[in-house]
Amino acid sequence: MMIRVAKTPSETITERKDEILNQIDSSSNKFVEQLQALCRQPSVSAQNQGLIETAELVSKFLKETGFTVEQFSPSKGPPIVFAELSSKTGRRTLVFYNHYDVQPVEPVELWKNPPFSAIVEDGRVYARGASDNKGNIASRLSAINAFLKVTGTVPCNIKWVIEGEEEIGSPHFSEFITRYKERLTGDSAIWEFGGLDYEDRPLVTLGLKGMLYVEFRVQTALKDSHSARAAVVENPAWRLVRMLDTITDEDGRIMIEGWYDDVKPFTQEELEVIRAMPLEEHSIRDELGVKNFLYGLTGFEFKKAFYGNPTANIAGIWSGYTGPGHKTVLPSVAQAKMDFRLVPNQDPVKLAGKLKQHLVRHGFADVEVGLQAENPAARTPIDAPIAKIAARAGREVFRKEPVTLVTSAASGPMHYFTNILGLPTVAIGCNHAKSNTHAPNENQRIDVFVQGSKWIARVIEEFAKQA
Amino acid sequence: MMIRVAKTPSETITERKDEILNQIDSSSNKFVEQLQALCRQPSVSAQNQGLIETAELVSKFLKETGFTVEQFSPSKGPPIVFAELSSKTGRRTLVFYNHYDVQPVEPVELWKNPPFSAIVEDGRVYARGASDNKGNIASRLSAINAFLKVTGTVPCNIKWVIEGEEEIGSPHFSEFITRYKERLTGDSAIWEFGGLDYEDRPLVTLGLKGMLYVEFRVQTALKDSHSARAAVVENPAWRLVRMLDTITDEDGRIMIEGWYDDVKPFTQEELEVIRAMPLEEHSIRDELGVKNFLYGLTGFEFKKAFYGNPTANIAGIWSGYTGPGHKTVLPSVAQAKMDFRLVPNQDPVKLAGKLKQHLVRHGFADVEVGLQAENPAARTPIDAPIAKIAARAGREVFRKEPVTLVTSAASGPMHYFTNILGLPTVAIGCNHAKSNTHAPNENQRIDVFVQGSKWIARVIEEFAKQA
Repeated sequence: MMIRVAKTPSETITERKDEILNQIDSSSNKFVEQLQALCRQPSVSAQNQGLIETAELVSKFLKETGFTVEQFSPSKGPPIVFAELSSKTGRRTLVFYNHYDVQPVEPVELWKNPPFSAIVEDGRVYARGASDNKGNIASRLSAINAFLKVTGTVPCNIKWVIEGEEEIGSPHFSEFITRYKERLTGDSAIWEFGGLDYEDRPLVTLGLKGMLYVEFRVQTALKDSHSARAAVVENPAWRLVRMLDTITDEDGRIMIEGWYDDVKPFTQEELEVIRAMPLEEHSIRDELGVKNFLYGLTGFEFKKAFYGNPTANIAGIWSGYTGPGHKTVLPSVAQAKMDFRLVPNQDPVKLAGKLKQHLVRHGFADVEVGLQAENPAARTPIDAPIAKIAARAGREVFRKEPVTLVTSAASGPMHYFTNILGLPTVAIGCNHAKSNTHAPNENQRIDVFVQGSKWIARVIEEFAKQA
Repeated sequence: MMIRVAKTPSETITERKDEILNQIDSSSNKFVEQLQALCRQPSVSAQNQGLIETAELVSKFLKETGFTVEQFSPSKGPPIVFAELSSKTGRRTLVFYNHYDVQPVEPVELWKNPPFSAIVEDGRVYARGASDNKGNIASRLSAINAFLKVTGTVPCNIKWVIEGEEEIGSPHFSEFITRYKERLTGDSAIWEFGGLDYEDRPLVTLGLKGMLYVEFRVQTALKDSHSARAAVVENPAWRLVRMLDTITDEDGRIMIEGWYDDVKPFTQEELEVIRAMPLEEHSIRDELGVKNFLYGLTGFEFKKAFYGNPTANIAGIWSGYTGPGHKTVLPSVAQAKMDFRLVPNQDPVKLAGKLKQHLVRHGFADVEVGLQAENPAARTPIDAPIAKIAARAGREVFRKEPVTLVTSAASGPMHYFTNILGLPTVAIGCNHAKSNTHAPNENQRIDVFVQGSKWIARVIEEFAKQA
């Protein structure tokens, strides 16, 4: 039996770094199984499927790991899980944000395996939610578990927020923030996602775009009828087409008056980081088989647009008969869903107003607009200490030069953390570039799942050491 | 026992007119049951559902009534039923056209009863196909049956064509016409539909619009992806929207170059008939809850447009996520179905070429165009004897002044009868204005079903008497 000499806490942990990383390796099967269990529990927020059950399962795994767990029930919607774990050795506090809900699985017919089967093939777990965002939850649990198993504590306090409506725009997250604001004090935060790019370089992401999600509905008659009447009765699909065609130009530029007024351009410092960022152009081109990008974008301009442009995307459109063959119907209703991604300083509420004014100005006052979600953009400064820790730890774990992203092109409620709670926030995790997030055959690479745990563990340790 | 004195055939039938009409009344239950049986056998040609079974059932009912029946099998597609019944007393020949296929039932959720249940409520049979076109088949069977029961013969030869692909544009009907042309000689023809207008006036319809049915498909990526990429990757729904918006202007006028070049305008004589035609404007307004029509159409101009304008109708459009809630997806494919209705002298094949040229000219050469159906328009002259017989018989049976329609606003393969077989053709039958044809809750009024049989019987009798 080996006799251990008492050391100062930080020395203890530093010396035990390899033990902790080995612990992550040796318990990886257990946490892959937790990931599979989470994936097999459907949790589609858009369809209100299995959310309460998933919140329970997440709470169970947190408690088993050692967290104190409570569930906050907003006025509507599923619970938000809030977990705490105090450090016996450190005084600093790191806050995690994740979400247990997932995107809808449609189109189901394009999945190789049932979307909630969580089958392991080619070293990946295939399931809706495997990558976004259950992989990160289980991967972080594995990191925390390793500290507890090896050292009996975590080196800093951990607060963990896991909500269930991220994929539908976090409509009740503000209630939670209002109620828990005092308890959500901390020094920095780790956002839900992150991982490796197309060349397996670790990505450290410092911001998110905002989001305005709307649903349009045009009705021109009480009911569908024979399309012979198209000679005299207006077709709502034509009306929807014409309305949509006023929103963007051929290149995707948004034609709504004043849409770009408040856009805060990238700083010179940010532009330099963007210039150094790798180009996703070729990987996206290969993955999607796309020959040319909008505006003919390429190189630095491609990157500036990808990370800096507000977008207007038709996420869905439907009217009339969409089945096989030939039906001659004059539809009575036409609908579309659109997501607008926003950049810093754009205010989604103000823009929703501009959209409605645009419809009136172009003679589409009759088009119904349902606002489904709104979040402003968020951005953490390039020189925030947590950004540097995340990059250093990423370099160490993955043995590749990390890439700092000024912002992601994606969206989420990060502004609650950065703007309201004042937490410098970075997004790092265990995702990989070909995870098919939001698409059929979503998957989580198991090797990145394990390495991602180590990355989080190294960040926790280095963060705890800071004064 | 009454002793009957032999009479000449036409006298016999004339004197037995009331007996024949009474026979129709007394056997009405039997033929409503045949209608229900036909409706309970689904036959959706767009979805290749139950067509062979329905051809068999139709053949069975024809044989039971007394017809000689054969089925023609085209190179592809379901059988075309051809039935013959020779007269013992008359030499003239009347040809019927009907179809046993029906439109798809979608959207199923708007039906009060299952679409193939054929439930009787409020004196109507509710089912997909009850009105279009199984009601007319069963109603005509009832008329023929009455002649045979009362007089032992029909007063003229009857040839009856019942196809199974009318609702998908009759893609194999030309094969049948080519093969059976010699056997399809006759003096006049009765088309598949017809009946009462909104004010229960009998309609005699002398023509049909033609049809060009196309499906568009735009693909901009190999697969759907996260809508964050909308900043750089083209969305096929935008592309489809922009392409469609070049096809018509705000009022529905078709902007494809040369689309109206060959349009034959109404003759002065036709315009006079149109002027006398009742206005469907208010009934359509009430039924559909429409406030204003295209171009602000009203009165005579409304009628001219309804019956005389080529149309361009979006029968279906779809892309991306169309389920409940909020999904942020960048679709890879967007699709639309369009039916173009054509008027006399417009050639669908030529117009399909113009459509494709239009796409190229506007930079949409990448949009795939699938041609699903094509029929030119058909029109029988206003002064054709069968038109006058149909009007007189309608006046007699319904005790209302009949309405002659120069053309229907709907479409079908009538040109094979009028242009290729040279048969003056009228459309009369047992439909009614609120039958919800091609829409949920399609229904057949039983009173009109029975009166429609009498109308057909009176037309057969008067037609047989002609020199």
